[in-house]
Amino acid sequence: MTQGDAPVLLERSDGIATITLNCPKTLNALSEEMLAALQSALDELATDKSTKAVVLRGAGTQFCAGHNLKEMTLRRRDADGGKAYFNALFATCSRMMMSIVRLPQPVIAQVQGIATAAGCQLVASCDLAVAADTATFATSGVNIGLFCSTPMVALSRNLTRKQAMEMLLLGEFQPAARAVEMGLINQAVPEDELSHAARAMAAKIVSKSPVAVKIGKNAFYEQSEMGLEAAYAYTGAAMAENMMARDTEAGIQAFISKKPMPEWSGD
Amino acid sequence: MTQGDAPVLLERSDGIATITLNCPKTLNALSEEMLAALQSALDELATDKSTKAVVLRGAGTQFCAGHNLKEMTLRRRDADGGKAYFNALFATCSRMMMSIVRLPQPVIAQVQGIATAAGCQLVASCDLAVAADTATFATSGVNIGLFCSTPMVALSRNLTRKQAMEMLLLGEFQPAARAVEMGLINQAVPEDELSHAARAMAAKIVSKSPVAVKIGKNAFYEQSEMGLEAAYAYTGAAMAENMMARDTEAGIQAFISKKPMPEWSGD
Amino acid sequence: MTQGDAPVLLERSDGIATITLNCPKTLNALSEEMLAALQSALDELATDKSTKAVVLRGAGTQFCAGHNLKEMTLRRRDADGGKAYFNALFATCSRMMMSIVRLPQPVIAQVQGIATAAGCQLVASCDLAVAADTATFATSGVNIGLFCSTPMVALSRNLTRKQAMEMLLLGEFQPAARAVEMGLINQAVPEDELSHAARAMAAKIVSKSPVAVKIGKNAFYEQSEMGLEAAYAYTGAAMAENMMARDTEAGIQAFISKKPMPEWSGD
Repeated sequence: MTQGDAPVLLERSDGIATITLNCPKTLNALSEEMLAALQSALDELATDKSTKAVVLRGAGTQFCAGHNLKEMTLRRRDADGGKAYFNALFATCSRMMMSIVRLPQPVIAQVQGIATAAGCQLVASCDLAVAADTATFATSGVNIGLFCSTPMVALSRNLTRKQAMEMLLLGEFQPAARAVEMGLINQAVPEDELSHAARAMAAKIVSKSPVAVKIGKNAFYEQSEMGLEAAYAYTGAAMAENMMARDTEAGIQAFISKKPMPEWSGD
Repeated sequence: MTQGDAPVLLERSDGIATITLNCPKTLNALSEEMLAALQSALDELATDKSTKAVVLRGAGTQFCAGHNLKEMTLRRRDADGGKAYFNALFATCSRMMMSIVRLPQPVIAQVQGIATAAGCQLVASCDLAVAADTATFATSGVNIGLFCSTPMVALSRNLTRKQAMEMLLLGEFQPAARAVEMGLINQAVPEDELSHAARAMAAKIVSKSPVAVKIGKNAFYEQSEMGLEAAYAYTGAAMAENMMARDTEAGIQAFISKKPMPEWSGD
Repeated sequence: MTQGDAPVLLERSDGIATITLNCPKTLNALSEEMLAALQSALDELATDKSTKAVVLRGAGTQFCAGHNLKEMTLRRRDADGGKAYFNALFATCSRMMMSIVRLPQPVIAQVQGIATAAGCQLVASCDLAVAADTATFATSGVNIGLFCSTPMVALSRNLTRKQAMEMLLLGEFQPAARAVEMGLINQAVPEDELSHAARAMAAKIVSKSPVAVKIGKNAFYEQSEMGLEAAYAYTGAAMAENMMARDTEAGIQAFISKKPMPEWSGD
């Protein structure tokens, strides 16, 4: 594989794109290089009509340990002690996290080993998540003096308030079973079934009409920031638009006629 | 019963109004006629002082299968392919869902069989829900090319984000026990205890002061769209208003004197 | 102890401040005097650099039974029937609840016996909560004609919607195990381990960098009222500020060097 040394691997088959964080020796830390490569992969997929679902995974035994603290520490030598750099770095990382949310295709986190700090934020930012039952999750920055303030944005939109606060204030590792209960992930499976489970979930999405999925995913996050009345006005228009798609006409016709769903054209 | 063929039955006894979706042969689909009848029943109850709680149920073996797709499909023949009609239909349906939220009396969904798409949205829009342990729930539009975008408004205000996304993206049926865990319903009971359980829940509400319940239900949804400070300003005023009710004065006096609660006057 | 008769006791040791509601004979009701004393304790702690975490508990066998209804009832004799007083009282109480949220240090509720109405709101307003497994929780105002409208502000920001509505509309007592499941509290422990468990949780927070905790707690509630993009802009700046703290530089350096964390200076 010519991509072997790249920070991020991007593979596509059967409508599923797999993004692999590919720096096991740093526990797939989100270095500048990793962030740029991830952003680039997401930007590429955003316009790739052949991709219907995305799996995000880590190479090696761990998912992602968050930011690259060594790289960050080097910038303390900057004239301003690194402050401008840190601001830019967190903005870059946040832009990447929002690109997952805004990607037309659903993104499934496939988690093994640890998912900590911005690595845990990656899981929370994905639309769905499946993990090995041995995986653990933590927003552990508080333990070393750096509160996980950007990860909290994604975390607090997944968990109830006291559960989010517990993770953020105590910084402790949560086992996969607890992550399921709290809503951070959808499913925990035996380690040797992990990649199969994530792919099976992706395949289910691939089997749906991509125009419906795209309209629906976008509408989900848009309406989540609105009041009830505005949310209904917005999603009502989204559904009417969805009704006008050729795929939808064919799908509903098949349903009414008790026939199998058509091959989706994507229009 | 003269209402026997009506799309919606409305019965009242003991302070409880029961609204029955009454078209078992379409699985109580939300046809134009059904939506209009439901809206009419809700509008009538909104000003009915004798009704203290509402139970919403479906006739036959199922709760509600969502929109009437056959009726919708006929309108594809419209000059605009149905777009104006679809927009109006979703607006009409959303108005009905919001009428449940805005009804002064609490509404309890009593669910048996399936609650799918807009039928699942009905459950999510009610204040409380009790289901047979054999009931199942799905936002299954994605399976036929029509993402459940308006149902997501109610669903995503009940469930955590990844659980809502799982239901919306995968379109799979969730058993009642899982619906309880996720917070979509309050309680699952054996099928033969369902109507009793829903009525018992309604009776508990009937036993409360209607003025308190009305102020409280309204305040709940109003404050849910506010920031913390505005929410406190709003609910503080609501509680002061509540304190001025004759019922409240009598109720607190009885509590302090360790006497039984008074008959509530509703003022 | 000279504070023996005071409505609120404030003790400090090992970086932990313990606030004790000290009126067991009224079940620690939030009388005017109690509210003023609580506000005063919170104001004092807000600027106390030696306090890293706060435990809020009730003297006697109960946590807190909410407002003092006898005191409130006396004001019905006011010219306006008490309305201005009630408005002021709820504003005073809400200000105190928001002071918990805005306190730089995390606040842990330590709950035994009952936590009802505004007492349940206190639990919901704390950042974390641990309870005896015999403790019970209710927003029971609805039972006496006074809907728990201000408590709902805190409650509905902790629980999912139908679970919050169930507590508010039915007014029933929820056991501690159910409170854990719903997210109202973090942990339920045997009664004789309660104070130890709350103190252990506080001690974990004391072991963290106070500058990180302060930035993080504040950011948590600020960002919770923002849309996604604004939340990321806000927390990105908060993390960059956090990076510039001396404690954080030392903590990250220790982590990279695989050394124990430093003594935190608080800067």
